[in-house]
Amino acid sequence: VTLSGSPHDFDAFVRGYAAGDIDDGAMTQWLREVFAHGLADEETFSLTMALAHSGKVIEWPEIHEPVADKHSTGGVGDAVTLIAVPLAAACGVHVAKLSGRALGHTGGTIDKLECVPGLRTDLTIEEFKDQVRRVGCAVSAATADIAPAEKKLYALRHRTNTIASVPLIAASIMSKKIAAGATCIVLDVKFGEGAFMRTLDEAKSLAAAMESIGVRAGLSMKTLLTSMDEPLADSIGDGLELDEALTLMEDRGGSKPLREVAVAVAEAMVEAAGRPRAEVESALSSGRAREAFAAMIQAQGGRLAEFDRHWPAAHSMPAQRDGAVARIDARMLGEIVAAAKERSGGTAAQRLGVRIVRRVGDRVRRGEPLLLSWLPHDDAMHSALARTYTIADRAEPLPPRVMEGGARPGPER
Amino acid sequence: VTLSGSPHDFDAFVRGYAAGDIDDGAMTQWLREVFAHGLADEETFSLTMALAHSGKVIEWPEIHEPVADKHSTGGVGDAVTLIAVPLAAACGVHVAKLSGRALGHTGGTIDKLECVPGLRTDLTIEEFKDQVRRVGCAVSAATADIAPAEKKLYALRHRTNTIASVPLIAASIMSKKIAAGATCIVLDVKFGEGAFMRTLDEAKSLAAAMESIGVRAGLSMKTLLTSMDEPLADSIGDGLELDEALTLMEDRGGSKPLREVAVAVAEAMVEAAGRPRAEVESALSSGRAREAFAAMIQAQGGRLAEFDRHWPAAHSMPAQRDGAVARIDARMLGEIVAAAKERSGGTAAQRLGVRIVRRVGDRVRRGEPLLLSWLPHDDAMHSALARTYTIADRAEPLPPRVMEGGARPGPER
Repeated sequence: VTLSGSPHDFDAFVRGYAAGDIDDGAMTQWLREVFAHGLADEETFSLTMALAHSGKVIEWPEIHEPVADKHSTGGVGDAVTLIAVPLAAACGVHVAKLSGRALGHTGGTIDKLECVPGLRTDLTIEEFKDQVRRVGCAVSAATADIAPAEKKLYALRHRTNTIASVPLIAASIMSKKIAAGATCIVLDVKFGEGAFMRTLDEAKSLAAAMESIGVRAGLSMKTLLTSMDEPLADSIGDGLELDEALTLMEDRGGSKPLREVAVAVAEAMVEAAGRPRAEVESALSSGRAREAFAAMIQAQGGRLAEFDRHWPAAHSMPAQRDGAVARIDARMLGEIVAAAKERSGGTAAQRLGVRIVRRVGDRVRRGEPLLLSWLPHDDAMHSALARTYTIADRAEPLPPRVMEGGARPGPER
Repeated sequence: VTLSGSPHDFDAFVRGYAAGDIDDGAMTQWLREVFAHGLADEETFSLTMALAHSGKVIEWPEIHEPVADKHSTGGVGDAVTLIAVPLAAACGVHVAKLSGRALGHTGGTIDKLECVPGLRTDLTIEEFKDQVRRVGCAVSAATADIAPAEKKLYALRHRTNTIASVPLIAASIMSKKIAAGATCIVLDVKFGEGAFMRTLDEAKSLAAAMESIGVRAGLSMKTLLTSMDEPLADSIGDGLELDEALTLMEDRGGSKPLREVAVAVAEAMVEAAGRPRAEVESALSSGRAREAFAAMIQAQGGRLAEFDRHWPAAHSMPAQRDGAVARIDARMLGEIVAAAKERSGGTAAQRLGVRIVRRVGDRVRRGEPLLLSWLPHDDAMHSALARTYTIADRAEPLPPRVMEGGARPGPER
C-alpha cells in the first residue's frame, strides 16, 4: 500500500477499508509504516477528516452559538466529565459530549452515568441534539454511525499493537470530536504514571498534533496538560465516582484534585466558547452545576433519587508504618478495580471500588486507614492494594496538576 | 535551586545530595524542573558523569582489549543477558556486566541467575574484575559503591513520580554503565506495549540521549531498538527463563524472538569491540556459548547440575474459540507473574511463572492450550491469564523485532 498522502488518497483508503475492499493485512502494513515513521501534519489531518466523514457528522445549525465538547486521554478516578459538562452548561455554554466506556486501567464516563437507574446513554442523534438544545447539555455514547471507520481501525490497532503512535491517536480522537460537530474543543491530555503518555514530552506531542488538526478544521481549541500521578477523585469505581461527583457539586466535599481539574476544564470550555471564565467558580459553589446535572440526568430518563448513595461497611487498608504518603500507584489501583469489575460483571460491578483516605503528602500513623475498599477481599487482594501505597519518612508536595496551553502549533515553536 | 548547568555545578550538586547537604525537598524541586523542561545535552552529560563518579569507577587496565557491556531498558521474558553475555565471550570479547533485579512488570537478570544453587551475584569489584580477566565474562549485582548517588536519586525519583523523563533515564542508565568501566556499550532500547516507552519516538529519543552521553564519554556505542509487543522468551518467570536460556544455548529449542534479540545484542557487542560479527551465529549453534555460560556460573560458585530443570504438571489455559492468536499482552503477563512472585516470596518464587505455547500468528482450535501456568490457581488467576490473549479470525504477522541503529546524534539528524 503506497499513499501519496493527499486528502483524496486518504478518503479513498479509509472508504475502501470501511467497505472491506482494503483488507486488514494491507491496513496493518500501513499502520506499521505510520507507527515506525510517523505522518506529516497534512497527512494526519487528511486521515482525521476521512475517518470523521466515514459516517454521520452531526451539525448544529439550530444553535446559533458555539457548541462545546471535551476529551480526556484517560485517567484513574477521572470523573471530570460528570462535573465539567454541567458546570459549563450552568455558565450558558451548550455542551454536546459523546463519551466512551472503561478502557484498560482507566474508567469510562458512560459506565459511571449508567449507575443512575433508568438513565439512557444510547440517545439517537436526534434525541442528543434535541436535549442539548433544550437542556443545555447531554452526555451519551457514540452511536454506531459516528466515525464507523475509526471504530474498525481502532480495533485493528489494538490487535496489531499499533495504538501507541501520536498521529494515529490524534486522528482517532479528533475524528470522533469532529464527527460530533462541536465547534469548541477542550482537550485534557494526561501525563505521568497513571496516564497512557508517561513523559510530558509525549503528552505535549499529542496535544500539539490534536491542536494542529483542530485548528486546520477551523475549531476553537484549548489544551490542558494535567498530571495523572495520583488518582483524580478520591474514589475509583463507577458508583463511588458518581457519588463523589455529586458530593462535589453539592459543595459537601470531594477531592481537591478532581475539583481543580474539573474547574480548569470547564473554564477552558467557557473560554473557548467566548464567555468569561470568571463565572465558573461560582456556578460550582452555588449549586447551579448540580442543578444542570440533575436536569441532564432527568432528560436522559435517569432517576437520580434512586441512585443508592449509602455504601456498606468497607474493608480498611491500614498503614504499615508511621510516615507520610509519598506515592500512590494510580495505574495499579485502576487495574485492580478494572479487574474486579470484569470478574464481577453486571450491575454488581457498579458498586465495586476503593476510596482514598490519605493522599500524597498526608502524614499517617501505623494502623490508620489509607484507603477503604469495596472489593471482594482475600490475601492476594489485600497485598495488591497494600503495594499501591509508598510510605516514606517525609513526602514532597506534588507539582501543579494543571499545566495549561499544551502547544499551539506554529512556526515560532 | 538554580543550576547554571556547567559540569562544576552538577558535580557539587550531586555530591551535596549524596552527602545530605542538599535535601530531598530541594532535589525534588530540581527533578520536577527537569521533568517539565528537560535538560540540554551538555547538562545531561554533566549530570551523568557526576552520578558515575559519586562512587567507585571500575577500570580495566589489565585487559589490553575492549571490555563490553549491554543494557536493556527492561522487558518481559527478557532473558537476553543470560545468552548474549556468554555468547559474546565465546567470540573472544571480555564482557563485564552489572545487572539488576526485577522492576515492576519486567524481570531482572540477577533474580534469574540466583536460581542456580550456590551462585553468587554479590561479587566484590576485585572478584568481578578477576573473573572477567580469567573466564572472559561475569554478571553480578552492582555493589553499593557503584554510583551511590544514582541509587539515592532513583529512589527519590520513584517516590516523586519523576521517573518518566528522557534525560533523567538516560543519565541514570549511563552513569551506571560508565562507573562499571566497559568501553563498548550495547543498548537494547525496548518500545511497544510491554516496554516502559510505548511509542517508537520516545524509544528513539532515549536511545539518542544515551548515545550522545556515551559518545561524549569516548565509548564505542551500539543501539538496538527492539519491540516488546509480545514476551521475548516463551517463558516468564525466573527459573523457567533460565531453563529456556539453557535450552536455547543447547540448540534444543527456545523461543525464536529471544534467540533473534540475543544474537543481535551479541553481534552488536562483538562489533562494538571491533571483531567480526559473523562468528556469533556459529558460537551459539556450536554450543560454545553454553560452555562459556557454564564457566561463568562455575566461577561464581553456581552448581548448575543442581538447578532443577524438571517442571511439575502445569495448569493449561485453553483457547476459548477457533482462530489465530492476534495479540498477547506482555505487560499484563509480566505483572501477573511479578505479583505472584511477590506474594510467594523466598525461593518458591523462583519456580513460579508461565510458558507460552501459542504465539502471535499461530492458528489455534478451541480447547487447545495457549499457555501453561505454574502459578497458584483460582478463578481470578484463570480469568486474568485468559485476558492476556486475543484470538481473532486471522492475525497479522508481527513487524521486524530488531530495528538497528537507534539514532547517532549529530546535526544531520
